[in-house]
This record gives sequence, C-alpha cells and structure tokens, in this order.
Amino acid sequence: MMGCMPATFRQRLERAVQTPDSLVCVGLDPDPDLLPRDWGEGPERVLRFNERIVDATADLAAAYKPQIAFYSALGLEEELAASIRYIRERAPHALVILDAKRNDIGNTARAYAREAFERYGADAVTVNPYMGTDSVAPFLEDPERGAAVLCRTSNPGAGDFQDLSVDGLPLYRHIAAHAAAHWNSRHNLLLVVGATYPREMAALRRAHPELVFLVPGIGAQGGDLQATLAAGLDADGRGLLINSARGVIYAGGGRADAIRAAALELRTAINRHRASHTPAKLDT
Amino acid sequence: MMGCMPATFRQRLERAVQTPDSLVCVGLDPDPDLLPRDWGEGPERVLRFNERIVDATADLAAAYKPQIAFYSALGLEEELAASIRYIRERAPHALVILDAKRNDIGNTARAYAREAFERYGADAVTVNPYMGTDSVAPFLEDPERGAAVLCRTSNPGAGDFQDLSVDGLPLYRHIAAHAAAHWNSRHNLLLVVGATYPREMAALRRAHPELVFLVPGIGAQGGDLQATLAAGLDADGRGLLINSARGVIYAGGGRADAIRAAALELRTAINRHRASHTPAKLDT
Repeated sequence: MMGCMPATFRQRLERAVQTPDSLVCVGLDPDPDLLPRDWGEGPERVLRFNERIVDATADLAAAYKPQIAFYSALGLEEELAASIRYIRERAPHALVILDAKRNDIGNTARAYAREAFERYGADAVTVNPYMGTDSVAPFLEDPERGAAVLCRTSNPGAGDFQDLSVDGLPLYRHIAAHAAAHWNSRHNLLLVVGATYPREMAALRRAHPELVFLVPGIGAQGGDLQATLAAGLDADGRGLLINSARGVIYAGGGRADAIRAAALELRTAINRHRASHTPAKLDT
Repeated sequence: MMGCMPATFRQRLERAVQTPDSLVCVGLDPDPDLLPRDWGEGPERVLRFNERIVDATADLAAAYKPQIAFYSALGLEEELAASIRYIRERAPHALVILDAKRNDIGNTARAYAREAFERYGADAVTVNPYMGTDSVAPFLEDPERGAAVLCRTSNPGAGDFQDLSVDGLPLYRHIAAHAAAHWNSRHNLLLVVGATYPREMAALRRAHPELVFLVPGIGAQGGDLQATLAAGLDADGRGLLINSARGVIYAGGGRADAIRAAALELRTAINRHRASHTPAKLDT
C-alpha cells in the first residue's frame, strides 16, 4: 500500500478525508485512570486498547492524533511507536498527527522533528509558535510532512495571551496571518483552533478561507459540534479535522462496539451538516 | 544526602547556587554529530559522555539542564533517566532542569508534569506560556518543584511574536508580569530570558527585581557574558542561572580536562563580575 501513497502532505490530507468521507480525527489519549480494566495493568494494555480503537474506526477516521504526553509520562514510547505502525497497517489512508506541541531553537527543533517524523513516522506534529519562525521552520521543511500550529486553543486560559490586542487584532490572528503568509509555501500548514470558541473560529475562517483547521475541544471540553461546523467549514464543506478523544475512545467504557458507534455518529453528524452547508458570508 | 535536602524549590535553588558558589548551568545536549568518538556509536556513549561532564563539573555547576529533544529523537529515555540519577549521586546540591518547553491543556499538562517530575525526577522543567494559566499551573503546584517559563528567548525569531506591542509594552513583558503576579505564589517560578538580547533582559530585571532568570544563549548562540551579567544580575549579584552547553561540553573535542577548564573559566568570569557588581538603577 505504501508504494501508492500520494507524495505531498496536501495530497495525503486530501486522500485521508476522501477515502472514509470523513473529517473525524480520533485522539489516542490513553489516560490510565480511564482505560478498560479487562487487560490488567501492564503497558501492553495501552497498545491493545489503541488496536481496538483503530480496528473499530479504521474506515471512519481521516486521522489519528496520539497525545504524546500520556505515553511519555508512563514510559510507553514503544507502545506509541507500535500503535502508529498498527494505524499504517489497518488504516493506510489515515494521517497520523503527533500531538506534542513542540517548540524550540533551530537545532533543537530539528531534533524534535526527527522524533516526530523519523522515530515515530508521524505525518504531522502540533507545534507552539511562541518562539517564532526559526523554531517552527524545521517542522515544515519536508513537503511530505506537516505541522499544526497552535493558534486559538480550546482550554479555559487560551485567552490569557492569545487574545491580547496587537494593533487592534488579537494576537492569535497575527500568528495566523504570519503563519499563512510565511510558513505555508509547501501547503503543509494546519492551524489548531479550538471548538470551544466558535466566534474566534469564524473570524479565522473569514480571514483564511484556504487553511485547514485541526479542531480539539468537541465533547468532554464542551465544544459544540454544530457551532463548530457553522463557524469553521470552508466553502467546499471541508477545511476541518475534528478531533474527538474521550467522547469516542471511552464510549461505553471503551467497548469496541460503543467506540465504533460513537465515531460513526460523529462522522454522520458532521457529514449531514456538510451536505447542507452554506458557508458564512466572507464580508461579515 | 537526600535526607537533608532542603524542602522547597526556593531553598533548593539557594543551596544549588551557594554550595559551588556558582551561577553556572551546564546544558546536557548530546548532539550525535558532536559527541566524542572514543566510545563508538551506541546509546551508552551518551550516558558515558554525560557522566564525564558531571564528573568534570560537579563542584562548579549550580544546575544541569538536559535538553530532552536530543534524547527523544534517538530513543534515549533510559540514558536520560540514568544521567539524572548520576547527577543526584555526584552533585546532590545541583538542580536538574529538564528543558522540554512543555505546554498543553490541564489534564495533558499534568501528564507532562508527571513525565518531568516523577519519571525523570527533575527539579524544574521549562514551559511555554502560549496556552495560558491552566496550561502552566500543573507545573507549579508542588512547592518542591519549579517551572521556567519562556519569556524572551535567545533565538533569531524570538521577536516575531514576543516583541509585538500590547498596550505599548512588548508581549513578553506582559507574560512576565502575568507570571510574576499570578503564577509565583509558591516562589518556584523562573523566567527564560536569552543572553542574546541584553537590552530586553535589563528591562525585565528592572520590572522584576525579585525573579530568577534562566539564561540560554551564551557562547555558540552569540550571547555576550559581560552584557548579560550587567543586564541581568539582581541587587545581590545573583538572580541568574547562566546556561552553557556547547561552549562547555564540547570544549577540546569533549575531553574531561577541557570541559572542566571551560566550566571553571565561566564560573570565574561570572564571579569576578559579581564581586564588582553595581546593580542597574531601578529608576532608569
């Protein structure tokens, strides 16, 4: 299958959405307190749980997003790598987005890019923009890999600095504009825009009709799906990857049939909205 | 030795500086291209190189700062943990600052805090503030551990966003003020302030006479030591931890005597300046 993988990140993203007709990204966040108990306590239960999730959602997900913190806290690097290999086997169309929010000076950022792209073989990695252009560039150098840059995040404190007004526009809008103008020459840039702030998402969509948003915050964090879709879909009824972790993977206590049902319900709800989508007017 | 460790982070920092009479922080950044070749190519050479550095500098360093990216890129988690254990044995006074620049939403930030403080046993971790208060709080909850929050970094792109003007002050000043006012109730907050921008450091010192700055950027990145000390020392001739990685650990091709000589020279140059230090006037 790998031989016929499309070449560029943009093409891979296109195929990731088209193959399952889905904007769903499944978050692989193995919180030890929430994992099903039926496989005991060892590290292998994380891998087996991820395999269950991938088996249950392989034809429904455009992307998988493992949150590396949950693996790093427990020394589960091998289980993370094995989970990603399993996604490649079972869902070769899907993107793997390593949620790591890396950011550092040039030679260190290059080491982090090696971690994400070479060690784990991810297609994309989430990146924090605070340190500026040279701290982000190493994640965007390869046109086959992408980076999702934090813009307006989904958490309660997101506004503490992201909303500070710079020349009459909030900081996150400046970061989006800078990223769109200077960091996307290889068409491999995504923005992270939280579902919990649909008004901010709508403003970003108006300003950047061409960018794809990676959207955390649906479900457990309180983001509303319909408001997110109304605010964030692009003119073609796409332009979003909507992540759900807890709402999918712990559905029904983590049973395979409940996981599949939750992912299917999310894809269906999204696609129903997409079918009737009228994009927000660009002049409002 | 562990039984008589001071209790709070502030006390531990005090002891870390006093015991070796030093503001030197040694960066443990094992770039595979720069490591001495005398131990072959395997992962054990990273641990042995770190042991050599610690042996050569144990009585000269206030802190060690491993940059986790260099370990993560190569799958050297065990070597990182063993290096930190070795610091505890050989330099029990010294702080271990895990340079990881973590930042994420609450439950994920807690997982990262577990990684730094429980898995690796670090005393402090570097943290990116972009996501706001709830993304930083988990790193500051334990009064025995600390966090060094990115403020004005040392890299060429630092100014892209950090210098944007918010109500007439650059963003990094707002972040410093917010951190000082809201995040330091346990006196376990440091700010990361790059040596490459002494003017910005001086402004931060005037605004925050009581905060300790973790200072990268001396040496290979071009930061000037005398300008840094003039700008950043507090009224007591302290308030800085000055990191050097490449300038110390690869001195003389990574020979033990050259490493020791470079660390000693740095400590001596700093202490000579401290002895004659007249703090910058607070009203300028």
